[in-house]
Amino acid sequence: MSTCPVDSRVIRPIRFIAGQCQMLDQRLLPVEEVWRTYKTYQEVAEAIRTMVVRGAPAIGVAAAIGAWFGARDIETESSWEFYQEFEKVCAVLLATRPTAVNLSWALERMKHFTQSNLERSVMELKIGLEYEALAITQEDEKANRQLGQHGESLLADGARVLTHCNAGALATAAYGTALGMIRAAVEAGKKISVIADETRPFLQGARLTAWELQKENIPVTLICDNMAGYLMSKGEIDCVIVGADRIAANGDVANKIGTYTVAILAKEHNLPFYVAAPISTIDLSLSDGTLIPIEERDGREITHFKDLQLAPEGISVRNPAFDVTPHRLVTAIITEYGIVDGDYLTGLNQIVNRR
Amino acid sequence: MSTCPVDSRVIRPIRFIAGQCQMLDQRLLPVEEVWRTYKTYQEVAEAIRTMVVRGAPAIGVAAAIGAWFGARDIETESSWEFYQEFEKVCAVLLATRPTAVNLSWALERMKHFTQSNLERSVMELKIGLEYEALAITQEDEKANRQLGQHGESLLADGARVLTHCNAGALATAAYGTALGMIRAAVEAGKKISVIADETRPFLQGARLTAWELQKENIPVTLICDNMAGYLMSKGEIDCVIVGADRIAANGDVANKIGTYTVAILAKEHNLPFYVAAPISTIDLSLSDGTLIPIEERDGREITHFKDLQLAPEGISVRNPAFDVTPHRLVTAIITEYGIVDGDYLTGLNQIVNRR
Repeated sequence: MSTCPVDSRVIRPIRFIAGQCQMLDQRLLPVEEVWRTYKTYQEVAEAIRTMVVRGAPAIGVAAAIGAWFGARDIETESSWEFYQEFEKVCAVLLATRPTAVNLSWALERMKHFTQSNLERSVMELKIGLEYEALAITQEDEKANRQLGQHGESLLADGARVLTHCNAGALATAAYGTALGMIRAAVEAGKKISVIADETRPFLQGARLTAWELQKENIPVTLICDNMAGYLMSKGEIDCVIVGADRIAANGDVANKIGTYTVAILAKEHNLPFYVAAPISTIDLSLSDGTLIPIEERDGREITHFKDLQLAPEGISVRNPAFDVTPHRLVTAIITEYGIVDGDYLTGLNQIVNRR
Repeated sequence: MSTCPVDSRVIRPIRFIAGQCQMLDQRLLPVEEVWRTYKTYQEVAEAIRTMVVRGAPAIGVAAAIGAWFGARDIETESSWEFYQEFEKVCAVLLATRPTAVNLSWALERMKHFTQSNLERSVMELKIGLEYEALAITQEDEKANRQLGQHGESLLADGARVLTHCNAGALATAAYGTALGMIRAAVEAGKKISVIADETRPFLQGARLTAWELQKENIPVTLICDNMAGYLMSKGEIDCVIVGADRIAANGDVANKIGTYTVAILAKEHNLPFYVAAPISTIDLSLSDGTLIPIEERDGREITHFKDLQLAPEGISVRNPAFDVTPHRLVTAIITEYGIVDGDYLTGLNQIVNRR
C-alpha cells in the first residue's frame, strides 16, 4: 500500500495511508489537533464542503484521494461502466466548492487517466488511480518546494511580510505556497517575520497561519484584517504574499475574501504584492477574473462564533468567501516553473504549456 | 434633579437621572440589554476604560457626568481647594482612553466652568457643574440632529451607505453622527440601506450598528471588514459615512481602526467618503493627524472572543484601536454648523470659532 513519507517535523494536513485518508480537522485548530479518518468518497466530499480541509491545493489533493475511494468501491468488470460510474463520483466531489480550480484540475486528471486507459482491466484502472492520487499529493509538495526556491529570491533579509488567509502547509499537501516562499527564505538563512491577517470569518490567519508558523519558530504577529493599512502607513510591512484559488489567463487572481483590499492597500503604499501558486491553480480556460465563480457561504459564519452569537438575530448578511484581484495590482505570480510578471497572458500560457 | 428627556423610542445609551448615571452595557449587546448604575467618578472612569460606554461623543458625555459625581463628593468649603480636588477627578477620567478628544473637551469645559466661577460657593459650583454636565449631554443630541440635517442633503434617495464601527445613537447621547445622517435622510423620506462592517476586534458594527438600525427598521446588511472592497468592486456601495474620534486642524481624521483602509477603498472606487462629527471632535491644537495619540489595546481582544480561544497560545499580537485617515481621502466633514470640504484648515477653523 502506498503511503506519503512520514516525517513528524513536516506539517502534512492529509495522510493517505493503508487505503484510508486521515485529515487534520482544520476547524478545531489551534485549540485541538484532531485527526479524522475517511474511507469513502462521500465522506471526503463532506469534509471538503464543511472545511475540515481547505486551501486550493489541499482541496485538490483531498478530491483526488476521495475520487480513488469512489473508484475502488465501484463494483463492475466493465471498464466502460467503471468510467461512467467514476464520472458520477467525480461530479459529487466537484460540487463541493466552486471557486478553487485545483478541485476540478485534480478530478480532470483522475478522469483523464481513466479515459486514456479504457483498454485496461478495472483492477488495473483502480491501481492506476491510486498511484495517480498519490502522485498528485507528492507533486503538490514538490511544486511548493520549487515555488519556494523561485520565490525566496524576491524576499530581502529582514523582510516583514504580510499574508492573508492561510496559504501554508495546511492549505496544501505540505510546505505551502505563500508560506512556502517564506519557509524557503528562512531555510536560505534569511530573517523573515510575518504579519498574519486573522482573515474573517473563518479565521484561517489567526487559527492556521499563526499555528503553523509558531510551530516552526518563524516570527509571526497576528492582526485583524482592518489593521494592515495602518501598519503599512507606519512603514511596518515590506511586501505582501498571498496564495490563490484560481488564476485566470490574464493573471486576475481569485483568493480568500479581503485579498483584493490588501492588494489595493499595497498599491497605495508602493509595496510589492506577490501571488504564490502552483500551476494547478491556473485556469487558462477563463479569459479574466470576472468569469471565476465566487462562493457565497452561510451567514452564520459571520453572525456566530461556534455557539456564541455576535450579531442580532435575523440580521441580513453577505458572506462572499473569495474576491478577485485584477492583474494590474499583482506584482508577480510565483509558480513551480518560475516567476511571471508583466505580460501575464503570455507568461502564464508559456508556464502552463512548458511541461 | 435634572433628567434627560425620556422617550422609549429614542436610543440613549446614558441616562443621567436622580443623581445617578445608568449606562447600557455595550459589551453585552446585542444578546443582552443590561443597564448598569454608576454613582462615583471612579466607577464611570472604569466604565469608559472597559468600554461599557464607547464612541467619542458618548465618552465625552460620560466623562462630564463622572466629573460631576467627583465634584459632588468633594468635601470642602473652599472653592480654591474644591477646584484643586476637581482637577484630580478630571485627571483620572482623562487617563481612561487617549484617542477621542471629546473626553478632554468635556472635561476642559467642566474645569473651565469651575475656574471661571471661583468667586462662587462650593455648593453653587456643584449645582453649576451638574447643569454643565446635563448641557453637554443635551447639546450633543441637538448637535447630532443638526449634523444630520446638513448631512442628509448629501445622500440620494436609494443610497447604499457603507459605515464602519458604530457612530450611532450608542456612540453619542442620542441620534448618532454617521447614523444621524442616515436617520435624517430616512426621516426626510429617502430610502436608505446600510452596509455595516462588523469592525473587528470589538465588533461594534455587528453588535451595535446592526442592533440599533434593526431596532428602527432601517435596512442593514452585515459584512466582515474585508468584504467592503468586494462589494465596492461590484457596484453595491454608493458612499461611505464614518464618525471620528479626533479631527486635526488640517482635516486628518482619527477613527476606529480600519477607517483608513475604507477611505483608500472609496478613493479606488471613486466613492464619496464622508466624516460626520460634532465640533467637540475637532482638535485645532494638533496641526495634523500624525500627532493624534493612537491607543493600543490588549491583544486578548483579538485572540479570544469571550472565553473562546481564536489563536494559538502566546502568539504575538498588534491591536491599534484607531487609525488616521489623511484629509486628502476625505470628501467632506459634516458638523452641526455645516459641511466642510476642500480647504479643511480654513473651514474647520471657521466652524469651530463661529459660535
